[in-house]
Amino acid sequence: MTEKQDRLALSLIAEPGDPRLRDLLEQHEPGRIVAAARSASGMRVPAVWRERALGIRTALDEVKARAKANDLRWLCPGDSAWPTSLSDLDHLEPLHGTAGAPIGLWIRGTGSLAQLCNESVAIVGARDCTTYGAESASELAADCTAAGFRIVSGAAFGVDGCAHRGALLMNKPTVAVLACGADVDYPAGHGALIAEIAKTGLVVSEQTPGAHPLKGRFLSRNRIIAALSQGTVVIEAAVRSGSLNTLNWADQLGRTTMALPGPVTSRQSSGTHEAIRSGKAVLVTNGKNVVEELRGLGAESSSPEAGPRTEFDRLPPAARRTLDGLDWSRGRSLTEIASGVRLTAREVLTSLDLLERRGLVVRFGVGWILARRADVG
Amino acid sequence: MTEKQDRLALSLIAEPGDPRLRDLLEQHEPGRIVAAARSASGMRVPAVWRERALGIRTALDEVKARAKANDLRWLCPGDSAWPTSLSDLDHLEPLHGTAGAPIGLWIRGTGSLAQLCNESVAIVGARDCTTYGAESASELAADCTAAGFRIVSGAAFGVDGCAHRGALLMNKPTVAVLACGADVDYPAGHGALIAEIAKTGLVVSEQTPGAHPLKGRFLSRNRIIAALSQGTVVIEAAVRSGSLNTLNWADQLGRTTMALPGPVTSRQSSGTHEAIRSGKAVLVTNGKNVVEELRGLGAESSSPEAGPRTEFDRLPPAARRTLDGLDWSRGRSLTEIASGVRLTAREVLTSLDLLERRGLVVRFGVGWILARRADVG
Repeated sequence: MTEKQDRLALSLIAEPGDPRLRDLLEQHEPGRIVAAARSASGMRVPAVWRERALGIRTALDEVKARAKANDLRWLCPGDSAWPTSLSDLDHLEPLHGTAGAPIGLWIRGTGSLAQLCNESVAIVGARDCTTYGAESASELAADCTAAGFRIVSGAAFGVDGCAHRGALLMNKPTVAVLACGADVDYPAGHGALIAEIAKTGLVVSEQTPGAHPLKGRFLSRNRIIAALSQGTVVIEAAVRSGSLNTLNWADQLGRTTMALPGPVTSRQSSGTHEAIRSGKAVLVTNGKNVVEELRGLGAESSSPEAGPRTEFDRLPPAARRTLDGLDWSRGRSLTEIASGVRLTAREVLTSLDLLERRGLVVRFGVGWILARRADVG
Repeated sequence: MTEKQDRLALSLIAEPGDPRLRDLLEQHEPGRIVAAARSASGMRVPAVWRERALGIRTALDEVKARAKANDLRWLCPGDSAWPTSLSDLDHLEPLHGTAGAPIGLWIRGTGSLAQLCNESVAIVGARDCTTYGAESASELAADCTAAGFRIVSGAAFGVDGCAHRGALLMNKPTVAVLACGADVDYPAGHGALIAEIAKTGLVVSEQTPGAHPLKGRFLSRNRIIAALSQGTVVIEAAVRSGSLNTLNWADQLGRTTMALPGPVTSRQSSGTHEAIRSGKAVLVTNGKNVVEELRGLGAESSSPEAGPRTEFDRLPPAARRTLDGLDWSRGRSLTEIASGVRLTAREVLTSLDLLERRGLVVRFGVGWILARRADVG
């Protein structure tokens, strides 16, 4: 077997992110560890690994079949698309029982992970975010995207989803790192969003295809989000929120740690404020701030993606705002759109008419839904 | 004449806060400077001082009459009620053409300024504040007052006024430092508030009674607000706002500099965010934060991050993983749990036993189900 195959077998034997795995990999080839788990003698490996190693051939067949059916690729260290930044994780102490670079990553989508993450920023935050958090996330993601950064997030409800959408609305790929198998739509309500992300960007997971998202796997996943990006921005996190865990990983990794403030009266911003207050994160209010933190002061103006104007850019302002008020997965009514984007019903109707003719939106039940991206011009 | 009288005369000859006055006072007694201004010979003093010195007797009589009519006292260095902290101003470089400790202060109200400012915090901010800024100011002032701090501010519309009111609502004195004479109600709409402040607290000014508030006098006044308090909190300041000038003074004085964040979409919080971002101010969200900054950590109860470990945290790792593998609604079999969380059946069984005894899981059909939450944070 190749090392790549050995790594795949190992990912089925041990729980990805298990610190014992990281420790063993420091001294042994993946193949040796697999062999040890399959034989009674040799190095000491946990009992559960031995148990699982017994059925490894069947498990491998099953996983390969599942991966093939779902168009998943197995990416490993050494592959050209493997982001070398991930190996920074090997030098850190375990956090919440997780440590080490992923053994490998399952990838849904066609792009190169290394290339997409070459200049990238993670935007994470509360699932139960406020409208303020949602809008801040979309806007920040769109601004960072426009400045040439790719957005990495966790595809969760709330801030994560809005961050991905902000990138997609700029017609740029985005990277979602899941806590379940890369073929599992979690949360189920984000199935359409995840599919949309995979179309131009990547859906990534260290978990076996089909794996369920367990609590520990979210914490484990967070280290990958942090390691794939040059910096992490937290938007709306209550104290002890999972996104602060991502911030901690970024901090440990020496990445740039940032947080967007909110009203002090908002519980959802309590964790972000605490992070800024304690010096764990730098306060950022907009994309310009983020770019300054990541590229250094004065860098922002020099490298905007000036490029040609996109189809989106060429739309009238009301139509652009109407697009902003639409969703990939859920139909929105005329009134709902109008109130969401602060346009009159008449303005929305005119805009929807234009957008429908351009094939950008379609009717969906009693409402409207996004049909495709406004392509680059 | 006593030095106190000399200082009074000097305050009528020179504009309070004039850096040249500070420089001369470093080398000469106040009386000598007055004498020099009145005689053609002696030390070099600005021409305008000589001009004013000509009418000094009449000016003194007028000011004394006005002060008497308005119950104003002239407070000077050496008086027991003089806050010695003001002399810190003598060591600073001029800022916006202002420098040095006040020559003296006119006081309206009966308390001791030194005593009131013994533990005090300045709360300043935008005149055109939002409802959010107004409420934050009142609340912060009330909380700091309850913690034993006296509030120092500028009696302006907006944040300043709300800060004073927050203190008054706690039935505690507060200190207003004006940019006009201490007997002048400015802004006029705050006449009642200023009178209320003077009843139990103090209204303070280095300006001559009856003096109008000129632009330069606001900047000059800000240094006194900063110097009278152990720390300054800015709430809502647009970029280039006057309250950031107070923050700068506090910074130069080595006082604690703090800022309360707001929505990033609010122009009124742009200056406060910039101050936090640049490291000029520490982010504070409430009175507890302010007290921690001023009295040191641990003065109040510990920060939330260090909070007590939850019931979940105290469980053994295998039991925590087992909990992760359980569901609220669907029973899971031993094998299912074990394979889901990658533990041996034996480890899961031991864990379930413990979790059942703690009332965290119950048997459900042939499987197991979550019984209650383990206070996960």
